[in-house]
Amino acid sequence: MNEMIAPRRAARLTGRIDPVAIEAVTRALAARFGNQLVTSQAVREQHGHTLTWTPNEPPDAVVYAQSTQDVADVVKICAEHLVPVIAFGTGTSLEGHVNAPLGGVSIDLSMMKNILAIHPEDLDCVVEAGVTRKEVNEYLRDTGLFFPIDPGADASIGGMAATRASGTNAVRYGTMKDNVLGLTVVTAEGEILKTATRAKKSSAGYDLTRLFIGSEGTLGIITEITLKLYGIPEAISAATCQFPSVKAACDTVIETIQTGLPIARIELADALTVRAFNNHAKLGLIEAPMLFLEFHGTEASVAEQTQRFGEIAEAHGGGPFQWATKPEDRSRLWQARHDVYWAHQTLRPGVRPLATDVCVPISRLADCVTQTARDAEESGILAPIVGHVGDGNFHCGPLVDVNDPDEVERVKNFLERLVRRGLEMGGTCTGEHGVGQAKMKYMLEEHSPAALELMRTIKRALDPKNIMNPGKVVAV
Amino acid sequence: MNEMIAPRRAARLTGRIDPVAIEAVTRALAARFGNQLVTSQAVREQHGHTLTWTPNEPPDAVVYAQSTQDVADVVKICAEHLVPVIAFGTGTSLEGHVNAPLGGVSIDLSMMKNILAIHPEDLDCVVEAGVTRKEVNEYLRDTGLFFPIDPGADASIGGMAATRASGTNAVRYGTMKDNVLGLTVVTAEGEILKTATRAKKSSAGYDLTRLFIGSEGTLGIITEITLKLYGIPEAISAATCQFPSVKAACDTVIETIQTGLPIARIELADALTVRAFNNHAKLGLIEAPMLFLEFHGTEASVAEQTQRFGEIAEAHGGGPFQWATKPEDRSRLWQARHDVYWAHQTLRPGVRPLATDVCVPISRLADCVTQTARDAEESGILAPIVGHVGDGNFHCGPLVDVNDPDEVERVKNFLERLVRRGLEMGGTCTGEHGVGQAKMKYMLEEHSPAALELMRTIKRALDPKNIMNPGKVVAV
Repeated sequence: MNEMIAPRRAARLTGRIDPVAIEAVTRALAARFGNQLVTSQAVREQHGHTLTWTPNEPPDAVVYAQSTQDVADVVKICAEHLVPVIAFGTGTSLEGHVNAPLGGVSIDLSMMKNILAIHPEDLDCVVEAGVTRKEVNEYLRDTGLFFPIDPGADASIGGMAATRASGTNAVRYGTMKDNVLGLTVVTAEGEILKTATRAKKSSAGYDLTRLFIGSEGTLGIITEITLKLYGIPEAISAATCQFPSVKAACDTVIETIQTGLPIARIELADALTVRAFNNHAKLGLIEAPMLFLEFHGTEASVAEQTQRFGEIAEAHGGGPFQWATKPEDRSRLWQARHDVYWAHQTLRPGVRPLATDVCVPISRLADCVTQTARDAEESGILAPIVGHVGDGNFHCGPLVDVNDPDEVERVKNFLERLVRRGLEMGGTCTGEHGVGQAKMKYMLEEHSPAALELMRTIKRALDPKNIMNPGKVVAV
Repeated sequence: MNEMIAPRRAARLTGRIDPVAIEAVTRALAARFGNQLVTSQAVREQHGHTLTWTPNEPPDAVVYAQSTQDVADVVKICAEHLVPVIAFGTGTSLEGHVNAPLGGVSIDLSMMKNILAIHPEDLDCVVEAGVTRKEVNEYLRDTGLFFPIDPGADASIGGMAATRASGTNAVRYGTMKDNVLGLTVVTAEGEILKTATRAKKSSAGYDLTRLFIGSEGTLGIITEITLKLYGIPEAISAATCQFPSVKAACDTVIETIQTGLPIARIELADALTVRAFNNHAKLGLIEAPMLFLEFHGTEASVAEQTQRFGEIAEAHGGGPFQWATKPEDRSRLWQARHDVYWAHQTLRPGVRPLATDVCVPISRLADCVTQTARDAEESGILAPIVGHVGDGNFHCGPLVDVNDPDEVERVKNFLERLVRRGLEMGGTCTGEHGVGQAKMKYMLEEHSPAALELMRTIKRALDPKNIMNPGKVVAV
């Protein structure tokens, strides 16, 4: 090791950064990046933006990266001066992931939009981090292939990998952890590495791919992703089915999963959410709890799945079904589902919904959802529920007037009870949104002190200067 | 930190251990474990046993652990004296994973056979590390559920997790990384932790589960595993189909995977292997390349899959099919496949087959297999090929007279070329056997220096004393 830099390597960021360091970094970035560097107030605030009530904590500067090398260069410059780097994709995260609580430089990857390779014969493709999920599928349109993971927002693939995202198709196709073959990552030292080959499986060493997936930019920055692709099913059939109660809908889901029916999507919307869909997308539905369903397969297998599901639903009082086999009808249905965040806003105009999520073992789903609905009612909170219930994962989005301190307090307590309920049922404090800033307080409740300390050991080892998205996940 | 122990914490094992340390550890273990501690030559050698030509390097002592706490206590005692600990399951690893090159204590987990919980309603179960895959399925027999991962040997679930094992069902059900919800792990400091809840998915922090899966006991010791289970398919149909060439068989596999046919098993055996099956299990097959197949689903979907596969196979000159729908016929077929290591020995009695594996992107499968077969022929080596070809993964088991130095040299060179061929085709040096000692030399070729250094950083951080199965995977 070079003795000149040894003392500096031992230094690490422990609080708000030194303004002198920021000035030095900004100067160096301006020299290297010209007008890819932006320091205007508006752009900085946009990069600390959040859809929730987490306060905006803007970075000191934003660099629009155009390549992995750009990202590496920003990290190297920041590492030299102990200045934080925060990766930014589309800004749709929900738990304060992109905030800059200590200040620092936001690396905006949204211009990294190259599809680097498509290997239809291997059912994979390689994309830059700024490509969004819809752009991937747009690009694949003529190949007969698709990429299934679909968080509500049209998020960037890099952000989806960094938060271990999933969405409506996860019940059949898994989450980002199951659908990434390998990553290109920029480390905390500004080194560029690949985590894996394109082989479908490997036992050759530690699973670096899965280590970075879900690490929320705290261990390194994901710049390229090799994604698994799937053939577009020969037959797709979508439907909605209404139920007398949320419990009846959940029990239908539980039985569907337990019988191994390979359903592609099974989504719950409670009566409040159905009203919101009617408001927002004019779906004209009866305001009762509902499942959104989709079946993938051959014509014969879709017909068979549909029939079997119908029998299960009927036994729980479900029906009638509304079918959508035409692509445009299906799109309308799923667009409504994906726009739920905006739909929920129609329930109480001018007030923000706060999206949060928990995930429990499927056998506890009905209990968790019904107890949560009862808690909301008893607390006088308008809290619509929607969820990827096939995985035991659901979202609850209380509508809260942030100018009413009493209401804010009630909602905060309600959300704490929701997470604790999920944990007590053997679940997790977040199924797919990630930890960010807002769920850090639950990490110790979910993980034992030893497990959390192990995460911190990894963080300290991979980011000894504590510059990679500091103050998030396991802040050390 | 306690200042008294601070200096010791900085020490780490860098070569063969001090005999005085071994003596101290053995004394402490004897006091704690009584006759669970064994130091006889025969038992020590059995714990350095390997099915390959890797030399036997026995540990200094063996402790038969009966609980997670036992494992933690052994690790604590060894950590105090800088003595290596090597986890041992059933001893069926193929790359020298259980050897003790620096000496140390082997922790035999084979007595940890408790099934701790079965949650049929959540499709999961919790088992101790010493339970074997067949024992899991035996236990599940009356539940209608099964655990699909099946490496050839009846390996322990702990060992399978530690090596990221897979097997014949991986093409449909994935590998150990896809089928473990969470682990109980003993760390290098002898702490006990759980890596995850039983929720089907989570975004709550770093993926500790996947970090330990495939880490081969070098970061911690897996003592309990929460496994995903599946409903036994309503219909199962198995078949063999023969082909005019290995290339025709591989091309059939490639097309099957590319069309998205959800085949449960698709295994290649070359003509040599078919002869070996005939010798070993009296299958009475024509000695031509063959695929072993299995279809899972409803009656209707199995019929449909079978028909579609038949069309693909026929287009590549495959046939006739031999069907096995009765459970006992299927068992006979798959037992023959799982016994391939022993079957191969019949091709040249008295000589050992050396099992190795590579895995390539599916589009390169036919090239890789045919080039390998040609290489064997040109090198005058008897090297039967068999593989989980649906994943692009195959095994090559040269039969080598270890007393013939010229032949040993030729086989070594042949195996190096095989791995390089796999890597050049975008594959991995091991699809499922793991790195152990024997594949360490390829780690730098497969991973970049930066990626390998990252693995070493993790190893140093989690095992600062270098006592967890040292000299394996990324030896630091």
